[in-house]
Amino acid sequence: MMTQALGEFIGTLVLVLLGDGVVAGVSLARSKAKDAGWIAIALGWGLAVTLGVYSAGYLGPAHLNPAVTVAFAVIGVFPWSGVVPFIVAQMLGAFLGAALVWLQYYPHWAETKDEAAILGTFATGPAIRRPLANFFSEALGTLVLVFMLLAFTKGKWTDGLNPIGVGALITAIGFSLGGTTGYAINPARDLGPRLAHAVLPIAGKGDSDWGYAWIPVVGPLVGGAIGALLFTLI
Amino acid sequence: MMTQALGEFIGTLVLVLLGDGVVAGVSLARSKAKDAGWIAIALGWGLAVTLGVYSAGYLGPAHLNPAVTVAFAVIGVFPWSGVVPFIVAQMLGAFLGAALVWLQYYPHWAETKDEAAILGTFATGPAIRRPLANFFSEALGTLVLVFMLLAFTKGKWTDGLNPIGVGALITAIGFSLGGTTGYAINPARDLGPRLAHAVLPIAGKGDSDWGYAWIPVVGPLVGGAIGALLFTLI
Amino acid sequence: MMTQALGEFIGTLVLVLLGDGVVAGVSLARSKAKDAGWIAIALGWGLAVTLGVYSAGYLGPAHLNPAVTVAFAVIGVFPWSGVVPFIVAQMLGAFLGAALVWLQYYPHWAETKDEAAILGTFATGPAIRRPLANFFSEALGTLVLVFMLLAFTKGKWTDGLNPIGVGALITAIGFSLGGTTGYAINPARDLGPRLAHAVLPIAGKGDSDWGYAWIPVVGPLVGGAIGALLFTLI
Amino acid sequence: MMTQALGEFIGTLVLVLLGDGVVAGVSLARSKAKDAGWIAIALGWGLAVTLGVYSAGYLGPAHLNPAVTVAFAVIGVFPWSGVVPFIVAQMLGAFLGAALVWLQYYPHWAETKDEAAILGTFATGPAIRRPLANFFSEALGTLVLVFMLLAFTKGKWTDGLNPIGVGALITAIGFSLGGTTGYAINPARDLGPRLAHAVLPIAGKGDSDWGYAWIPVVGPLVGGAIGALLFTLI
Repeated sequence: MMTQALGEFIGTLVLVLLGDGVVAGVSLARSKAKDAGWIAIALGWGLAVTLGVYSAGYLGPAHLNPAVTVAFAVIGVFPWSGVVPFIVAQMLGAFLGAALVWLQYYPHWAETKDEAAILGTFATGPAIRRPLANFFSEALGTLVLVFMLLAFTKGKWTDGLNPIGVGALITAIGFSLGGTTGYAINPARDLGPRLAHAVLPIAGKGDSDWGYAWIPVVGPLVGGAIGALLFTLI
Repeated sequence: MMTQALGEFIGTLVLVLLGDGVVAGVSLARSKAKDAGWIAIALGWGLAVTLGVYSAGYLGPAHLNPAVTVAFAVIGVFPWSGVVPFIVAQMLGAFLGAALVWLQYYPHWAETKDEAAILGTFATGPAIRRPLANFFSEALGTLVLVFMLLAFTKGKWTDGLNPIGVGALITAIGFSLGGTTGYAINPARDLGPRLAHAVLPIAGKGDSDWGYAWIPVVGPLVGGAIGALLFTLI
Repeated sequence: MMTQALGEFIGTLVLVLLGDGVVAGVSLARSKAKDAGWIAIALGWGLAVTLGVYSAGYLGPAHLNPAVTVAFAVIGVFPWSGVVPFIVAQMLGAFLGAALVWLQYYPHWAETKDEAAILGTFATGPAIRRPLANFFSEALGTLVLVFMLLAFTKGKWTDGLNPIGVGALITAIGFSLGGTTGYAINPARDLGPRLAHAVLPIAGKGDSDWGYAWIPVVGPLVGGAIGALLFTLI
Repeated sequence: MMTQALGEFIGTLVLVLLGDGVVAGVSLARSKAKDAGWIAIALGWGLAVTLGVYSAGYLGPAHLNPAVTVAFAVIGVFPWSGVVPFIVAQMLGAFLGAALVWLQYYPHWAETKDEAAILGTFATGPAIRRPLANFFSEALGTLVLVFMLLAFTKGKWTDGLNPIGVGALITAIGFSLGGTTGYAINPARDLGPRLAHAVLPIAGKGDSDWGYAWIPVVGPLVGGAIGALLFTLI
């Protein structure tokens, strides 16, 4: 279990470092990738998850996402006793990954005169603030994620080239369902970096929008569980 | 047969949810993916089909397209008795997938002051309205689709990484043959969401352009059958 | 040999239909893919070659390119007796593929008030007209193509997922070496469609730039032979 | 060892020819790929490395990067006696690859009135000049590269489709960590072409920014060694 939790820590770290990294590259002032746009974000996040899975996959099952861990516990393919250690490891990895993004783009924060762009590098936010609709968006995106992970690989997505398929799934969700809330679809991916945004002395940052923070946590947990139950049903 | 039809229902639902979803993301006002353009659409639709095939592939052959089902019946590799159940399942899945796109982007419809963009999220339309040329476009696109499906996988495209190849085929048709009519190349993918557009209380919608609706139905059916016959001939 | 030549005909037809098709989509007035740009062209041409190889691969070796056929004859892995039939089949396929692009985008030619864009849909042209430099560009691009085909697949690129690798190679050459002359790197791909441009009654077309036509024929033939010899040497 | 060093020479030549080539295509005046942007650069460099690995992989281990060679020597999976021959071969290949880019785009240099764009085609430079931060950026990027190479393929990335995975890794680093310094993450890739820039009679060139040159050499060497040690630790 310790080895597997270490895998969750490393994998989620890599996932957030590369995932939040592509948002930083596209959003921060004077970045060479500035304005590469949504295609770069969707492809970059897909690759981030692929590489997160590869980096965790030789140590454990590479959930990298509390919504996946909880959903698999709900349908009985992952022990409930592992849920807390996995989520703690995922949160720590996500926090540290976000901190590394801060260091990687260190000179760019002070140059960026847009507090929303700085927060958006760390955590997601709604295109149109409507809690119920935003909750639905995050839940449906995660439902698709968990359902497809089960359909695609029967829950074993670390084998062979499967991590590339998982990345393609993330890219697809980003293209097709992400325009509304920025597709957190993963509580650790959103809450860990939001904590990092709140805690770290980032030049030019504004507030961390804690009023929205529950949606990319609860939405994915609910949607993921429904996705797993739907798959089991069928 | 019930299991296979369930596969058609789920797969076409996923295909339209993610396929119409990417058009919504790129077209609707205030979407984060706004203006990501044709590359996003071609890649997003390719991934939508890949994931549709994966989600249907453990239940059946994953046609997800009446033009494929009919073409395979014409050349004798699919029983005629299965054609109606498959098409019904595909239409239901397409309708429900489109309804989910409506819910996923719920706050965005009222913000979008462009009736054509709203319709375009659901159903295809011609760049230049010329029925004969538009019919030819849809027929040729579907001919290439069915011919290549047979050439590429001998009709078994659910195995291993083949669904990724099928998605690449859709992306290729989108890039190369899609600029004229938006490449429906699938009667269910166009008619199901057009019905959803007509029936659902979508804020800001205009008419559903029923005058054009026969082209993305009949064109693909004719083109697909010719494609299958050509392959058999060779 | 007849079967293999049929494969060359079909494969080159598909290659030019989808390859010239993406240029039409990106270039012609009122196309939905208008201005999708060089990324669409590089990806679209890569997929066109992938699908050309798949459509030819169950009939023969899928050269689809006189520069490949001649290079393989030069190093003795393809019989000289097959060179003329292969090139004839490739030219016929390329011509017919270009004619289908004309029909697919039929209403768009009259709307396009740019003769260079119309010619550019069919045949390549130099960014800066300098015959020696343009010749070098085409030769080096084809050298890389043939060398890599041999290094990558030992000359058997129709197996398994190899056609996707071949497409990626074309995309890479497009991104990296194509900005100068539009990377014909294939005499049939350029000369066949140029003939179609000259012969077909395309609305709004200008002249076919025959003064340039020898470069994308001779450059690839020379470069391909050098690439094959270099590989054999090493 | 001679065969393996030949592999390093050819592979690094291909890597720089196609990698610097895509930057030339996107940056130089009157190139057809002009302004295709960061997505083209990230995809093009990924494909360049994929093809470099394929072209070297039948001769040796395809490091193509002194930071990889040194890191593997540090953790004892590559003999120290091979380090100097490998680095010499990599540097020669990188220099010759850059010289070929110069010839490929020969008419474009005189048209390009931007000395930074010309230098940027050959070597990397910082978005914001801050030596410590720039050093950290290059070190972290290379740490991720070496760590993932080991996690992903246990150090054998020339087999099967693995070279495509390696290219995807380079694309991911470009998207996510490259916005700050242009991700050299390879001393030979930066220093070889910088020498070529200094030595060759390139029309319109300015100085070669030697003051920055140590960062993309030392940063990757340090980061790569740390990445390999971290992986071994875990």
